[in-house]
Amino acid sequence: MLLCDIGNTSYHFLKDTLDYKESVQSFDPSTLQERVFYICVNPHAKELVKDLENWIDLSGHVEISRYYETMGIDRVFACEAISDGVILDAGSAITVDRVRDGSFEGGFIYPGVQAMAQTYKNISPVLDYSFNFELDLDKMPKNSRDAISYGYLKTLYNEVMEQNMELFLTGGDAQMFAKIFPHAKIDKTLIFKGMKKIMKKAKLC
Amino acid sequence: MLLCDIGNTSYHFLKDTLDYKESVQSFDPSTLQERVFYICVNPHAKELVKDLENWIDLSGHVEISRYYETMGIDRVFACEAISDGVILDAGSAITVDRVRDGSFEGGFIYPGVQAMAQTYKNISPVLDYSFNFELDLDKMPKNSRDAISYGYLKTLYNEVMEQNMELFLTGGDAQMFAKIFPHAKIDKTLIFKGMKKIMKKAKLC
Repeated sequence: MLLCDIGNTSYHFLKDTLDYKESVQSFDPSTLQERVFYICVNPHAKELVKDLENWIDLSGHVEISRYYETMGIDRVFACEAISDGVILDAGSAITVDRVRDGSFEGGFIYPGVQAMAQTYKNISPVLDYSFNFELDLDKMPKNSRDAISYGYLKTLYNEVMEQNMELFLTGGDAQMFAKIFPHAKIDKTLIFKGMKKIMKKAKLC
Repeated sequence: MLLCDIGNTSYHFLKDTLDYKESVQSFDPSTLQERVFYICVNPHAKELVKDLENWIDLSGHVEISRYYETMGIDRVFACEAISDGVILDAGSAITVDRVRDGSFEGGFIYPGVQAMAQTYKNISPVLDYSFNFELDLDKMPKNSRDAISYGYLKTLYNEVMEQNMELFLTGGDAQMFAKIFPHAKIDKTLIFKGMKKIMKKAKLC
């Protein structure tokens, strides 16, 4: 049995305790014979898997009224994995969601590292820097690289810290954000934990 | 006598008390006969004006050691205009700079409204919304439009408010940001004030 979280850039699989990724651009889901329980935010990939009998969509098994209609299903399943805390999922977008006593209290969407670096570069070629995750968040910057790094990271940092709850980091760039959130718990398989919980409730495993 | 602040998208002129803009794409600076005192962050426009005798670059008259080498000259001149406060200049980029007792204390760069909307849209077509400047900044969102608006605006809001100083809004989108910073002072001619101050010091007027 495989679990799969299909995102905008990759198929993220979990087999037993091993997780691995395949690119959405090159991977053909019909090549898999075994049963795959999945969630999917990618409209193109959704088309590819929806008629494959061994690919089972878990999205219908969650009590969606506890969230909101257009909320990404990956965020929903990450929230299902915890009962209290803030989840920062750092992928092509960064989503930050708050859960208290098992209830979703809302969340917001922020650009991912790559998207935001591209944004600064598009505004002006003089802003073409990689972000400095080691910057001093307590000090207003006096150089260009730190000025964009602070703009991207400190603003996010303030809002996350203001929640004053345990912080869970997940997604492909979780490790990077651990540099500015050293107290956080990194869990790259958080969404899979949510999927397993829902599968148990639905008696699918 | 004309003053001109040349940005990434427009030539912003001040004649007496009237300010107006010309597009950098279509305006030809050689068509002007009168003296123009200018600053410029746009490399292309810089090439066009640098050999025109009636266009006088003010950047050399500021004490640049009080700032940092790669800092946009428009930010420098805005800082020169005030002695205490935070300046939020909302253009194609948003710059936020802190000045205390006439000294620049640092600042950061954040994407402008248009650039950031494009960023969300590029990440996924389902994030293609205009920002809601009326959103409740005290409440974690439960819909997609507010989730990106909060990601963009609340994060910036927190950091600006944390400075706990008088706030000056300038730039093309100043009016929009006044919705989330109702206590701020809007001054679309702040950079021109800095230019006039420098011109007085340099005895150019």
